[in-house]
Amino acid sequence: MNFNYDVLVIGGGHAGCEAATASANIGAKTCLITMDMNKIGQMSCNPAVGGIAKGQIVREIDALGGQMGLVTDATAIQFRMLNRSKGPAVWSPRAQCDRGKFIWQWRHVLDNTPNLDIFQDQADELLVDSTTKMVVGVRTIWGVEFHAKAVVVTAGTFLNGLMHIGRRKVEGGRCAEPAVHNFAESIERWGVRKGRMKTGTPVRIDKRSVHFEDMEEQPGENDYHQFSFFGPHRQLPQLPCWTCNTNEEVHAILRADIANSPLFNGQIQSTGPRYCPSIETKLVTFPDRKSHPLFLEPEGTDTNEMYLNGFSSSMPWETQLEAIHHIPALRDAKIYRPGYAIEYDYFDPTQLKHSLESKMIGGLFLAGQVNGTTGYEEAGGQGTAAGINAALLCGGSDPFIMHRDESYIGVLIDDLTTKGVDEPYRMFTSRAEYRILLRQDDADDRLTEKSYKIGLATRERYDWWKEKRENIDRIVDFCMTTPVKPKTVNGFLESIGTAPIKGTVKIADLIARPQVNFKNLADQIPELKEILNSPKNRVDEIDEGAEIKMKYKGYIDRERVFADKMHRLEDIKIKGRFNYSEIHDLSTECRQKLERIQPETIAQASRIPGVSPSDINVLLVLLGR
Amino acid sequence: MNFNYDVLVIGGGHAGCEAATASANIGAKTCLITMDMNKIGQMSCNPAVGGIAKGQIVREIDALGGQMGLVTDATAIQFRMLNRSKGPAVWSPRAQCDRGKFIWQWRHVLDNTPNLDIFQDQADELLVDSTTKMVVGVRTIWGVEFHAKAVVVTAGTFLNGLMHIGRRKVEGGRCAEPAVHNFAESIERWGVRKGRMKTGTPVRIDKRSVHFEDMEEQPGENDYHQFSFFGPHRQLPQLPCWTCNTNEEVHAILRADIANSPLFNGQIQSTGPRYCPSIETKLVTFPDRKSHPLFLEPEGTDTNEMYLNGFSSSMPWETQLEAIHHIPALRDAKIYRPGYAIEYDYFDPTQLKHSLESKMIGGLFLAGQVNGTTGYEEAGGQGTAAGINAALLCGGSDPFIMHRDESYIGVLIDDLTTKGVDEPYRMFTSRAEYRILLRQDDADDRLTEKSYKIGLATRERYDWWKEKRENIDRIVDFCMTTPVKPKTVNGFLESIGTAPIKGTVKIADLIARPQVNFKNLADQIPELKEILNSPKNRVDEIDEGAEIKMKYKGYIDRERVFADKMHRLEDIKIKGRFNYSEIHDLSTECRQKLERIQPETIAQASRIPGVSPSDINVLLVLLGR
Repeated sequence: MNFNYDVLVIGGGHAGCEAATASANIGAKTCLITMDMNKIGQMSCNPAVGGIAKGQIVREIDALGGQMGLVTDATAIQFRMLNRSKGPAVWSPRAQCDRGKFIWQWRHVLDNTPNLDIFQDQADELLVDSTTKMVVGVRTIWGVEFHAKAVVVTAGTFLNGLMHIGRRKVEGGRCAEPAVHNFAESIERWGVRKGRMKTGTPVRIDKRSVHFEDMEEQPGENDYHQFSFFGPHRQLPQLPCWTCNTNEEVHAILRADIANSPLFNGQIQSTGPRYCPSIETKLVTFPDRKSHPLFLEPEGTDTNEMYLNGFSSSMPWETQLEAIHHIPALRDAKIYRPGYAIEYDYFDPTQLKHSLESKMIGGLFLAGQVNGTTGYEEAGGQGTAAGINAALLCGGSDPFIMHRDESYIGVLIDDLTTKGVDEPYRMFTSRAEYRILLRQDDADDRLTEKSYKIGLATRERYDWWKEKRENIDRIVDFCMTTPVKPKTVNGFLESIGTAPIKGTVKIADLIARPQVNFKNLADQIPELKEILNSPKNRVDEIDEGAEIKMKYKGYIDRERVFADKMHRLEDIKIKGRFNYSEIHDLSTECRQKLERIQPETIAQASRIPGVSPSDINVLLVLLGR
Repeated sequence: MNFNYDVLVIGGGHAGCEAATASANIGAKTCLITMDMNKIGQMSCNPAVGGIAKGQIVREIDALGGQMGLVTDATAIQFRMLNRSKGPAVWSPRAQCDRGKFIWQWRHVLDNTPNLDIFQDQADELLVDSTTKMVVGVRTIWGVEFHAKAVVVTAGTFLNGLMHIGRRKVEGGRCAEPAVHNFAESIERWGVRKGRMKTGTPVRIDKRSVHFEDMEEQPGENDYHQFSFFGPHRQLPQLPCWTCNTNEEVHAILRADIANSPLFNGQIQSTGPRYCPSIETKLVTFPDRKSHPLFLEPEGTDTNEMYLNGFSSSMPWETQLEAIHHIPALRDAKIYRPGYAIEYDYFDPTQLKHSLESKMIGGLFLAGQVNGTTGYEEAGGQGTAAGINAALLCGGSDPFIMHRDESYIGVLIDDLTTKGVDEPYRMFTSRAEYRILLRQDDADDRLTEKSYKIGLATRERYDWWKEKRENIDRIVDFCMTTPVKPKTVNGFLESIGTAPIKGTVKIADLIARPQVNFKNLADQIPELKEILNSPKNRVDEIDEGAEIKMKYKGYIDRERVFADKMHRLEDIKIKGRFNYSEIHDLSTECRQKLERIQPETIAQASRIPGVSPSDINVLLVLLGR
């Protein structure tokens, strides 16, 4: 064994595991350094993957040949497609997972990935060549020196982690795990700015103490949908979640003790995730709300532990407990542990290129919470991108960049590197300007071929996607070209409350109507039924893909036009071409921002907050355009 | 939820899990406080349970209604009955377990034990009533105050844990887990003496890098033997172990760097387990040995991690690795982590009563490594005893004491409390003077009824044992009373090389011969075959029990006589009846020892090192005997 690798990945969470497997699967000799092999892929907070926009990210990771979707499907104990009542642009898969099995499934994946070694140790110092400013490796707390061409840091909340419950503080990277000191400072030494962020987690409850009769059951769905385009379907028994609400008594108890909240008494100065607020933050932000919804989520098929989603808190434990006991369903609740907050170091992500490589230290990649994001999916998406780019760097290839019209991961990374963060960044569909192009159903169409070309997506996955794509196209072609006569369908159309047709139309014209779908139309048109029943692989997904393509064709085409326009700006590279401080036609703020961010393209420059359209015009004129 | 319990158990390792389940199953309201619910029952060192004498302890735990045997059977990936070539007194079951599944199996057991709560937190202070010197509870690092009538401390190696690899030191209770400060001191404050012990663990190896063709395969056995008398049989796929040897090159590499061994350069002052020495200790202790055996053990059914038994070390990691690479089978070995040593606090166990209750602090029980022992089984045995006695104390019942002729657990606790420890105590069959009475096959016969009477062993278990016992007795009675004529068996006897009989004898007389067993004799005597085939439950175990009873009857009866004699001395209570310092007929050493240990009986006094038979006679005379 020697300790020379192409790529080192520091941290075995959601970002680190994706980075390590992506890098190794592309062919880079990779080593994952993790403090604890029993905690690989640990879900530090809620035992769930996906959700609005986040689910799309997981589908993208999967389409790229990453692992999160497969691990989630293998360990899912509840699946739902959120937003089914809205358009397919915002349909989002979400699953509860068995927390323990999730860890061992990840461990199994890593253990069986060629080119990937695991070493159980703690990074203590980033090793950088002071002349070239290139990363050369990592030294651990046990003094093991690893050398590598690229290092991906995915340290989560461990860098100088400090946990809070009420006025008590305990050092740690996560409940029961030590914090990592020195390592963040060894990166900062090279001029990388770091800051502090905060996040939190709620109380865990013993299900034997819950009055389920006072809660509402929220069952999952068990149709064909899943996370992976390619892997096996869910196998574990499926369990319901449960919902209830806080009330004014609960709020009064929490409010009465707000002076002991580290979030509001000055003990915690750093910023937490706006869209994952603690219950005490919700009370302060929405003083008039008389109740907030709570979700009690199972943690696994064979544990009594349940997660109280919506009740994240760092109030004193006595107060958390008293408040919970005033929720009827939880009046006798026993807890396994109170909620807590944690502060940790992150690095300003505007110091990164779109490849997630540091602008200051060559070969250093950062992904996940260390970039100021929140969420397993955001971490996994960045991890995949960082792992790919670290491996490509070692092979001397160009970086793999996903654009904003190609993936939520592209949106995420562009937002991080262009706008930076002042609070933990969470993905939303509203952050994407090309939402209808970034659907959960077509992530493979957007990314699998691209990933196959750089050697991540396997041939098998590529062929699978290609066959699916051809099947969809065949159905779409058929529908676009096959005429339907009024007498064939007018009775049916009237029966479902939509206007009869006057002359012959194409099947596609009918599918565009809201009331019509493949399911009901196929009963009227035997040839349609026949073609829908013919493809082999995961039939329902192919039908769904074809249907969405036709139903939303107008929207899709329009966004495509906008996206292509923007692409022309993406093609105008400006990095290193200007000394911004000397361009006096730019506003001062714009000069400073451009100086700091050093955008790679005109398109990126246009997205920097403080850079106006007239500033962009100044640059375009200077470029002779 | 209130935080008042009958019994608190501090620590979720092998001692703590047994203590918690035993206490709760007896009916005491119990809370297990553990730092990490993901590490419950973690096997910190080798992924194996049982072995010589240790296997008997696990059978005893099971016979008492404890859990270790059940958890082991459920997760075993290799089983062997050691010492089958020797007498049944030393037959010892041993299993490799799947490390990850072992944790989740324990978690499952705890989660489904009535009366038992789990709280994830870290004990910071033992709360004691300064007037009564009785324990009143525990305060955690998060400031949660638990109150209880009894506290069982099973902190393993966590109390002020300090890990060593070469000249590097890192604080921690175990690899990747924080050490516990303050708590040991909060016990010491009440006059309880503490000391330091040391243990260690070997390197973990990636099986993909091993040349198995250069090792010898060591398959398991898959007959009816198992750990639990009562539970289901092994279910997991069974895997082999592998053996190889160190060589002189390996030894030379280690010796050349001995100055950097913390065991030999003064960095570690505390004592490690003599019978689990590090490889460097073996080299120093046996300078002439040219090789030492090594065992490469699987860690689970779906991991590449393997455990290199026999190579425990705290040498610098570079040296460990270089040495390993000079073993042919491991010439390309990749490691997941190097071996390390750990120092930790323990409490002198002579400060405990036979119930494992502290003599200084009423209601405080100690079990496992905090008493200076080593081994999961030793910990589990103590945990079971401590959990039982903590629960009985709460219920106002007399302590549950196991005598030396009743169980290895009894031997263990008597040794600890009577002789103390100057190195981590490991059980051996040689520590038991009544070995033939303490067999693995009859642990249920020794303990199940006794445990049923205090409410731990369930009725179902009791009935199962009783039926088994009746079946054994029936077979024995039959064999003791059924005559065999020479003509029936003489041909057979001569064919297996043993003398023919001259006149009619009983079946039992034949079974006593080494060459004869049920299996071959039953073919000659149809009535014997019939009775052997009749019992219902786990037939082979019943046959085996009956056969051992008859084959070893002479030895068993003889040890029984000795044991009964000693019992008479056990019945002479002396605790509190003497002021030893005033008995000038005793030797000075004896006076001091008796003063310190305060033995409960004459028998215990006789086992204290430094107390001679003439000292015992002095005491007997003073008692008027």
